Amino acid sequence: MSRIVYLNGEWLAEEEAKVSIFDRGYVFADAIYEVTCVLDGKLLDYDGHAARLKRSTGAIGINMPVDDETLLSLHREIAARNDMTEGLIYLQVSRGNPGDRDFMFEKDMTPTFSMFTQKKQVTETKSAKNGIAVVTMEDLRWGRCDIKTVQLLYPSLAKMEAHDKGADDAWLVRDGEITEQTSATAYIVTADDVVITRPLSHVVLPGITRASALQIAARNGMKVEERAFTVEEALAAKEAFYTSASNFITPVVSIDGKAIGDGKPGALTMKLRELYIADRRANAI
Amino acid sequence: MSRIVYLNGEWLAEEEAKVSIFDRGYVFADAIYEVTCVLDGKLLDYDGHAARLKRSTGAIGINMPVDDETLLSLHREIAARNDMTEGLIYLQVSRGNPGDRDFMFEKDMTPTFSMFTQKKQVTETKSAKNGIAVVTMEDLRWGRCDIKTVQLLYPSLAKMEAHDKGADDAWLVRDGEITEQTSATAYIVTADDVVITRPLSHVVLPGITRASALQIAARNGMKVEERAFTVEEALAAKEAFYTSASNFITPVVSIDGKAIGDGKPGALTMKLRELYIADRRANAI
Repeated sequence: MSRIVYLNGEWLAEEEAKVSIFDRGYVFADAIYEVTCVLDGKLLDYDGHAARLKRSTGAIGINMPVDDETLLSLHREIAARNDMTEGLIYLQVSRGNPGDRDFMFEKDMTPTFSMFTQKKQVTETKSAKNGIAVVTMEDLRWGRCDIKTVQLLYPSLAKMEAHDKGADDAWLVRDGEITEQTSATAYIVTADDVVITRPLSHVVLPGITRASALQIAARNGMKVEERAFTVEEALAAKEAFYTSASNFITPVVSIDGKAIGDGKPGALTMKLRELYIADRRANAI
Repeated sequence: MSRIVYLNGEWLAEEEAKVSIFDRGYVFADAIYEVTCVLDGKLLDYDGHAARLKRSTGAIGINMPVDDETLLSLHREIAARNDMTEGLIYLQVSRGNPGDRDFMFEKDMTPTFSMFTQKKQVTETKSAKNGIAVVTMEDLRWGRCDIKTVQLLYPSLAKMEAHDKGADDAWLVRDGEITEQTSATAYIVTADDVVITRPLSHVVLPGITRASALQIAARNGMKVEERAFTVEEALAAKEAFYTSASNFITPVVSIDGKAIGDGKPGALTMKLRELYIADRRANAI
């Protein structure tokens, strides 16, 4: 059965949801997105995603399409309309359709707002059980990866290349240091159990799962250090993992073909995953 | 009257041409474009644009939507259907609509192919007569600007910022050296009348107008040097200009508020513009 999706105030069968070929999201990649996880029919880390959506749209001057209350009710309604108790809600806000193509735009445009659901098992996953293999690749993305735009061609191509190389995903590298996984935050755990991840800057996304995971780690007595780390440090790490809204905390068991630790999901990683899921589940709305 | 546009084999009123919210062009900026100029009802530099379209789609593994003959006849037909004797033909090829969102994609997808016209005076323009003012700005675009993707958010924002600063456009800078104008190739002319532009690499687009302009300059005894130049060199230049398919050769008369030469369109620049238009007009198809 086809999904019911949302587009500019209408509920439509997914096949019917279309935007103009002049929409700036289509011709200029002038759009912001968010992905929020649904578990037990509730929204995880919703406030963080809603706040980041405002931050991203604000950073490039796109108007918010709806008010706070409506945004939350649309999330609930789309999950309900699609009988989704576990999965993802994707939303996209483009600057809108100016009716013609021009690099210049009016500052008060009416945005194009779309949402759809993706059913997906998020708690019990193969990658969480077995971990994933990553390969390192140069980070060729633009200089403002802190803004969650749809300029995702490079992450997509990098993920494809990683699969071509027999891995599951790529860790991106700038000046010898890891920035991020293609669509997730990257972490290592040192020999003395310190969780390391890159500090926030223009070259990484301020991950919502990252923020929650770091808080939960600290609250549970884990040592956390926000600093850049090199590929060499990553290869020598005791454990490695990534965080994202759709995969929570997931172990990385090999980097560039080299096993991390004993090549199995790390103990600290799996403990943090368990703590994260319990905590976020308890706080879902 | 509304334009007739082309979308996936159909001729539609512009308001009716729509793509799925799942199209990879919309959610991943996974699309290539080209802009070809029409003058006297004929296509300028068509072969160059058609060849670059193949190069760009090939670089990211998007299938060409139509064969060579059809591509040319569609260009002619869309100009004819819209009674366009002077203006632009924009075409976009996205990887297509996979029906759902996933960073991974099938390698044999059917592309989404759209085309539309924009009527525009190209020979007699205000900017050609008076020149334009540019401001320099950091080049934050991705690392493969040689591929003509729709990831144009930064060029668009940079052009808006230039206007906010009272200029017409921006020249982008990497490591102290000019890469390009937001959507055009940048040039300076030295005191001894050497035309300088950055050599082709991953950080600049292989401009079709650039290639023709450099050939025409050399053929007419002008000295041309392909090398990177700094912001300081640009500020001290005798002349400056830019090239693009829609603006041919257009003078730049100030950079960061400093007049270039005497602050008027340069003699060499205007001579080259004249030669370019005459040559391309004679060779239009």
